[in-house]
Amino acid sequence: MSAYTATVTVRLKQGVLDPEAETTKRALERLGFELSGLRSADRFEVDLDATDEDAARERAGEMAERLLANPTIHDYDVEVAPRE
Amino acid sequence: MSAYTATVTVRLKQGVLDPEAETTKRALERLGFELSGLRSADRFEVDLDATDEDAARERAGEMAERLLANPTIHDYDVEVAPRE
Repeated sequence: MSAYTATVTVRLKQGVLDPEAETTKRALERLGFELSGLRSADRFEVDLDATDEDAARERAGEMAERLLANPTIHDYDVEVAPRE
Repeated sequence: MSAYTATVTVRLKQGVLDPEAETTKRALERLGFELSGLRSADRFEVDLDATDEDAARERAGEMAERLLANPTIHDYDVEVAPRE
């Protein structure tokens, strides 16, 4: 077993309204910043032990499916890196 | 001016309690997953126009300092990529 960190990024699917991001964008504009768009996402860094990188990726994907993401409204991606 | 997307990742500083991450970790464990740690972070993808990549990075850093992160409890990093 080796130690990995899986980073799961959970974002709203295209077309799902994101009022928090809209509010943040407006607040930045009120501060004088110019920007043409803003999207927010949640990021989870999960430390886990697995036999190899593929196993770690698969397990993190299951975590996303079962808890971290809501498949109705979210897309997610998983990145895996060895943990020192 | 060119189009860039700046990704600002905002995470709690080491040592700052993160009850949301702790709750998520326990929920995953109740589902039968084994993990040795979980950290959560917010990720903002900001679309902006700038003269070059350094200017885009600097502007996104100012956004983090002024609004997206709370320097008392948060660290942040900025990644910039050209936007298609």
